Amino acid sequence: MTTLHPLAKKVQVLAFDIFGTVVDWHGSISREVQALYPDVDGDAFARTWRAGYQPAMAPIRQGQRGWTLIDTLHREILDDILPRFGLTHLDEAQRRHLNRVWHRLDAWPDSVEGLTRLKRRFTITTLSNGNIGLLTNMAKRASLPWDCILSAEVFRAYKPDPATYLGVAKVFDLQPEQVMLVAAHHDDLAGARACGLRTAYVERPLEFGSAHVKDVSPQPGNDLHTANLMALADMLGC
Amino acid sequence: MTTLHPLAKKVQVLAFDIFGTVVDWHGSISREVQALYPDVDGDAFARTWRAGYQPAMAPIRQGQRGWTLIDTLHREILDDILPRFGLTHLDEAQRRHLNRVWHRLDAWPDSVEGLTRLKRRFTITTLSNGNIGLLTNMAKRASLPWDCILSAEVFRAYKPDPATYLGVAKVFDLQPEQVMLVAAHHDDLAGARACGLRTAYVERPLEFGSAHVKDVSPQPGNDLHTANLMALADMLGC
Repeated sequence: MTTLHPLAKKVQVLAFDIFGTVVDWHGSISREVQALYPDVDGDAFARTWRAGYQPAMAPIRQGQRGWTLIDTLHREILDDILPRFGLTHLDEAQRRHLNRVWHRLDAWPDSVEGLTRLKRRFTITTLSNGNIGLLTNMAKRASLPWDCILSAEVFRAYKPDPATYLGVAKVFDLQPEQVMLVAAHHDDLAGARACGLRTAYVERPLEFGSAHVKDVSPQPGNDLHTANLMALADMLGC
Repeated sequence: MTTLHPLAKKVQVLAFDIFGTVVDWHGSISREVQALYPDVDGDAFARTWRAGYQPAMAPIRQGQRGWTLIDTLHREILDDILPRFGLTHLDEAQRRHLNRVWHRLDAWPDSVEGLTRLKRRFTITTLSNGNIGLLTNMAKRASLPWDCILSAEVFRAYKPDPATYLGVAKVFDLQPEQVMLVAAHHDDLAGARACGLRTAYVERPLEFGSAHVKDVSPQPGNDLHTANLMALADMLGC
């Protein structure tokens, strides 16, 4: 165990990004797609589906489209990409089942034990653009021991809208600096930092699969930089 | 164990009222007030504080006041009743601490084990007028193993507004009849039933203390009537 970081005494709530940070969307979707449809390139399918994610949120962030849940956006992207993978024949039940794979994502190997340790000292909550039902179903299946499920759905705004980061502080009646965002994405952490939250970057080099290793080198500005959630627990004395 | 109720196969989510149903607000507040201020009648203090609850929500329900969290309403009622108990001398820190007693309520003796059993078969969530932070702090302290924390705060409407009951079904993408409200209050259950939810009444004869035993006789309309959460788990085959 490393020396206890001084932030461990000041921070009360750890808010976690989910897709890529706590769960392995790429591996989970690749495996399920390949198992269901062996002729499809699971790696390409997972990355193509995920690539539609930010563009799908853009009109909502810009106020050109009303509030819409990620389940709906995921389905729209899915319907859009199926032809590219020769899967136009999927019927409604098959599409609906496949879309729910986002509720069935597997945790990274360190997540459950890391969160269980962190939960001893901190309140641990999700802070994801995923909807509440998705996050709850995922947690139940993957045994993620959240104290609370917070989502863009609660704040009716998608990260990096300040309403999401400041919303966590407000929910717990805390100052922003008493909340730390834990994420594998620098843009998410930058959004939180701009609101006064503390930030911890988690290396997830395989977020996009072993064929597309991600640069996980430290960037200035984050309070902590960790290999995984067990290392974060070490650092925070849990 | 009694015979498995046929509803056990149809219902997927159990939504729980909290104050009085899962936790003992009267006993917890009485004990804490009496320990802090031995001259005060803890029983009367707890009942007086709680008596201000429904009237405080009324202007919000009627649209005469904007959305306000229960923490704020509890504090307003507290400031209002302190003179009646000779406690006007309490300073800001003492008032703030006392108001947070609602985050520190003890569970009924059957709640943790009952919920743990029910969680095996169902998704278990809060559905309380209490705010998210209050419910999360309470759950962490009392070891209530929720899958999800839903609150009036998520729907920006207080029970019995249909937006709350139907909101649970919508969050989990279910039909109303796939959700069951579990509560110790017939008016709450009536609100849920009117929205198509299933309902389970839980007897809590000591909700208002042993000096004011509550009538817990069955009323028509509820799907289930149970003595406590262990009995509910028996009934639902958990």
